[in-house]
Amino acid sequence: MSKVKVGVAGYGTIGMRLADGVVRQEDMELVGVADVAPTPAVRALHESGMAYNLFVVDPAQKAAFADLDIPISGSFDDLLGEVDIMLDAAPGGIGAKNKALYEKAGVKAVFQGGEKNEIADVFFHGYANYEKGVGQNYLKLTSCNTTGLIRTVDALDRAVGVEKVAITIVRRVADPGDTHRGLTNVLQVDKVPNHQAVDLMTVMPHVNATGFLVHTPVTHGHVISIVASPKKSIDPASLIDLFRAHPRIRVFKMADGFNSNAALFKYARDLGNKRGDMYEVGFWEECVGMSGDDILFAINIPQEAVTIPETIDAIRAAMEMQTDRLEAVGMTNQYLGMKAGR
Amino acid sequence: MSKVKVGVAGYGTIGMRLADGVVRQEDMELVGVADVAPTPAVRALHESGMAYNLFVVDPAQKAAFADLDIPISGSFDDLLGEVDIMLDAAPGGIGAKNKALYEKAGVKAVFQGGEKNEIADVFFHGYANYEKGVGQNYLKLTSCNTTGLIRTVDALDRAVGVEKVAITIVRRVADPGDTHRGLTNVLQVDKVPNHQAVDLMTVMPHVNATGFLVHTPVTHGHVISIVASPKKSIDPASLIDLFRAHPRIRVFKMADGFNSNAALFKYARDLGNKRGDMYEVGFWEECVGMSGDDILFAINIPQEAVTIPETIDAIRAAMEMQTDRLEAVGMTNQYLGMKAGR
Amino acid sequence: MSKVKVGVAGYGTIGMRLADGVVRQEDMELVGVADVAPTPAVRALHESGMAYNLFVVDPAQKAAFADLDIPISGSFDDLLGEVDIMLDAAPGGIGAKNKALYEKAGVKAVFQGGEKNEIADVFFHGYANYEKGVGQNYLKLTSCNTTGLIRTVDALDRAVGVEKVAITIVRRVADPGDTHRGLTNVLQVDKVPNHQAVDLMTVMPHVNATGFLVHTPVTHGHVISIVASPKKSIDPASLIDLFRAHPRIRVFKMADGFNSNAALFKYARDLGNKRGDMYEVGFWEECVGMSGDDILFAINIPQEAVTIPETIDAIRAAMEMQTDRLEAVGMTNQYLGMKAGR
Amino acid sequence: MSKVKVGVAGYGTIGMRLADGVVRQEDMELVGVADVAPTPAVRALHESGMAYNLFVVDPAQKAAFADLDIPISGSFDDLLGEVDIMLDAAPGGIGAKNKALYEKAGVKAVFQGGEKNEIADVFFHGYANYEKGVGQNYLKLTSCNTTGLIRTVDALDRAVGVEKVAITIVRRVADPGDTHRGLTNVLQVDKVPNHQAVDLMTVMPHVNATGFLVHTPVTHGHVISIVASPKKSIDPASLIDLFRAHPRIRVFKMADGFNSNAALFKYARDLGNKRGDMYEVGFWEECVGMSGDDILFAINIPQEAVTIPETIDAIRAAMEMQTDRLEAVGMTNQYLGMKAGR
Repeated sequence: MSKVKVGVAGYGTIGMRLADGVVRQEDMELVGVADVAPTPAVRALHESGMAYNLFVVDPAQKAAFADLDIPISGSFDDLLGEVDIMLDAAPGGIGAKNKALYEKAGVKAVFQGGEKNEIADVFFHGYANYEKGVGQNYLKLTSCNTTGLIRTVDALDRAVGVEKVAITIVRRVADPGDTHRGLTNVLQVDKVPNHQAVDLMTVMPHVNATGFLVHTPVTHGHVISIVASPKKSIDPASLIDLFRAHPRIRVFKMADGFNSNAALFKYARDLGNKRGDMYEVGFWEECVGMSGDDILFAINIPQEAVTIPETIDAIRAAMEMQTDRLEAVGMTNQYLGMKAGR
Repeated sequence: MSKVKVGVAGYGTIGMRLADGVVRQEDMELVGVADVAPTPAVRALHESGMAYNLFVVDPAQKAAFADLDIPISGSFDDLLGEVDIMLDAAPGGIGAKNKALYEKAGVKAVFQGGEKNEIADVFFHGYANYEKGVGQNYLKLTSCNTTGLIRTVDALDRAVGVEKVAITIVRRVADPGDTHRGLTNVLQVDKVPNHQAVDLMTVMPHVNATGFLVHTPVTHGHVISIVASPKKSIDPASLIDLFRAHPRIRVFKMADGFNSNAALFKYARDLGNKRGDMYEVGFWEECVGMSGDDILFAINIPQEAVTIPETIDAIRAAMEMQTDRLEAVGMTNQYLGMKAGR
Repeated sequence: MSKVKVGVAGYGTIGMRLADGVVRQEDMELVGVADVAPTPAVRALHESGMAYNLFVVDPAQKAAFADLDIPISGSFDDLLGEVDIMLDAAPGGIGAKNKALYEKAGVKAVFQGGEKNEIADVFFHGYANYEKGVGQNYLKLTSCNTTGLIRTVDALDRAVGVEKVAITIVRRVADPGDTHRGLTNVLQVDKVPNHQAVDLMTVMPHVNATGFLVHTPVTHGHVISIVASPKKSIDPASLIDLFRAHPRIRVFKMADGFNSNAALFKYARDLGNKRGDMYEVGFWEECVGMSGDDILFAINIPQEAVTIPETIDAIRAAMEMQTDRLEAVGMTNQYLGMKAGR
Repeated sequence: MSKVKVGVAGYGTIGMRLADGVVRQEDMELVGVADVAPTPAVRALHESGMAYNLFVVDPAQKAAFADLDIPISGSFDDLLGEVDIMLDAAPGGIGAKNKALYEKAGVKAVFQGGEKNEIADVFFHGYANYEKGVGQNYLKLTSCNTTGLIRTVDALDRAVGVEKVAITIVRRVADPGDTHRGLTNVLQVDKVPNHQAVDLMTVMPHVNATGFLVHTPVTHGHVISIVASPKKSIDPASLIDLFRAHPRIRVFKMADGFNSNAALFKYARDLGNKRGDMYEVGFWEECVGMSGDDILFAINIPQEAVTIPETIDAIRAAMEMQTDRLEAVGMTNQYLGMKAGR
């Protein structure tokens, strides 16, 4: 069987990681990545040996790359001419413009959470609603917080049923290296409900959700606390077992020294993961408790990398590589080295 | 009627504010404050005109004060000899040692949240269990987070009944100026349940509580989200009305520019409040929503000043100045300038 | 002698402090302050008793104030009709537009550092070039960092002569409460020379200056290190004496607990200063040393309040209240309670 | 020629990177690393495939490792019995205790900056005083800031001679993931001169140095500004050329998007460097200027990895692998992939 041919639009924080993730899929071929300028990320790609073919969005920009001896494989149109599907990781709003090009070129596309829902046929999450994405042309991924959140709520829902969730998101305000945004000594609040709760209900319409969000001046991962009302009672020990069995949730113990979002980032760096990335949502064994029949637990969202697996799931769905949900996510997990029991 | 004579042990972040609060009570007299060394806080007291008499804990320390021409009114024993009740704001653990001196001198005392519960006859909150403190010799205040939290849960409980609460505390990790503690670019998690939930159940034993806490690198106020299960249904508009009617809860609108913990601190500075302090818990109108029959809301805890009113309530209880709860807190509120409807 | 009549345009971080400072000058009268909307700062002014008359910049905005029962004394034109001089603390760039109004109304004005130099007849610093401002119509103040920096370099220059300075500014990136700007876990660098060095040379053209600046994620004061080449040798002890004798420089000892920018802010809060403000530049006795014949020292710039004294000096110069430099700054100092020897 | 056998004591932030660096030296053999407990770092070593043999410092600790199925190659004594030289990266102060063991085992050792100078025969820097380390038994490396600082000052000194330097260190206060130390919204100052200036003079006694240091709440690299008085004049363009020719200094342009310490960290992550590490000191082309005949410039110190090259140089010196300075550092550079002209 020939490999599905994939392109990536936008070689930024998400785009570069999508490229890395696609390359690890043995049933996919990364045709290349496209960007508009020789950013530091593009320079790093070049300096580290041009692992990926690079296409320029606008021919007028070629000179800037040539000045730096960065080889170019062609234009954005050239890229679209060679791929089956595009992963659009352009800045928020640009994806909507790109969609016209994708339609014209007759290629499918997966958009990230920064675009509006209307851009896509389905608002997609690999574990929660894979079936809805099968054969669709345009899919939009949930945002980083929502993607990680749904992993846990979906797992709980499939095990015991979830009636409702009330979430509190302690949000990292910027990525490492950002200077165009940031907060200093401020906890900034957002309106209730936050968009993540609303998005969860869009993907999991049988669950009631609300939530509060506070922006905090850190860069290494969001933390979410979740109060879930299960339909069938579940105790902390069972929840820990449930999450340990999930390939995209990783269970940590504070007692082992994993006491923060930054400790998980450090661990991923020390594992030798590229860029110190972690695909898994982190879950702390000591951070779970009962509130009557409800269960309270807390998770860590590694915002830079968490959406990569579900985006790859979206390729599988759109291209009908697998029609079965578990088979599809299982392939993604296998190629990314994600497995249960860690 | 003669005024109740009050002393303060420890002129630190809490002690200096207790002194300020007592001075504003027309039915109390601040005999003085005691400390061990000419700290910056003591220097500020001196430079701004020695509003309070200063006593030294250990006579051997007098020379250090004399070198700076800071006048001393006597020893710790001298202070104990003149007061009816001591407010102990010494560093955590010292209060337990001081208690022996208080017992010997036959004076009552109110301890802060840093001491163990065993130090006191009652774990006290002015609004929630005033009656239990009446006539007692040794009371311990709830901590800053718990004090503010209970204000809101108690108000809700008295209005509609509260069955349980699940709280998420986004904790400021240090006070402004602290260099002996701090976090940098870290969200550090704590075990579930946090002590604040446990403490709430001690003071309000008819309510079930659990909670998660995350330490964040900020200094201007904790933020707490609360998921409460009321016995009788209450909607957001009614909750807003309920809190607006509470003299120790202040309602803010994000739309008016009050979008963070630091915005509230800035407002208190601009009001001309001494040290930019705010006694009230802040509540954001936009940060309330329903989770089925449960209600979710978020509050701000100004950690430096929030326990002052309830500590003064404790004096009223211990000294039997008022036996009625609402009469007592009402006196405190009046003297501190706290009133409903803001 | 009748008092000089002063207005303030823009009731923000600087404007509110200018108003406070003018009110303390017994030879000036604050006619009022003008702003465009009922911001939190304006609400604080109202809630704390309308210490100052409030004028609205645009008549169309009156309704917004009326909705909140905030009394208005008139329009911006009304204010201009009553004053001799305006202190313009509008956001950067607005001052240039306001200037046309000032010219039309025939009032003098003092602009803040956010405007371009071309707006004014003289780039002014009370201590360094008072004489140049005497009788001028339009003066522009140096920025917060430059104002504090020049205080120390001017003092050194008048004592022993300064040939050149190389400065490193460790800049606080946002004010307390700011959410429209900030940095998170980043030290962001600026080009050499920084504008503060260039500005210093504009005000003190006989001194050579260069400098580097790094933005840091804090809010309570800039820190500057200065390597100065004096014409006549000066040792650390003499520099300490020199600065202790300056009413606008305050000498602190780290050994006394003053070990940071935030410790100075805390001290100002504990002094009971309004908003916790400090007009003085802080200087640490332990932070001075020789580099051959050059001298290295470090200072703290309380960015919210530091330009107030020099702005008031500018009123004195423009209005020819005093023609002698030391007489003028001495009046400002006296009314603001600033004195040598602290 | 047989390879030099190297061991590492302490598998923490520095120790793990020393192990990585030694493994890349084709003329050295890493016998193993030793630690006291299955820390997260040791777990990461295990999970990622035990690239290095692990020895336990105390036999009583073996059970803790066995519980996790982490294979152990022996005791600390076993390790000492197999090596020629130890790199001691134990926590500060432990190295002094370890030295007795090294002496008893007859092995040489290189200590890190956290130990006192008295522990070693020479206070060592590969580029500045390689010759002094040749054949010595015990060497102590300069600290991370001093190591990077000396790289630049030594390069300048060998080019044009340096009479004196005045440095300002804007210090990151904690490493990513640290919760045992940190600062929140504080710029904490240190006494002048800082130890880095003193240490520079110890290693380069012909240069006069002083400096000021301020601790800042960030984690991704120190920034140092240096005012150097050269013996022979040098202009900014020549300094840029000089640093570009240095294999351990890397020249960046702010205009290319490298505007902060965190931007450099991000770049190293995007290069695919293990842990996102960078061995090179960063230098910004736009951050250099003249102060009369003096030259001012700024550099970035990646604190986690910067001392690795010079520590490997120390092995070369102690073991007399090379006696020529440039030959030695050239070997280290070649194996670590460091080269001029970047």
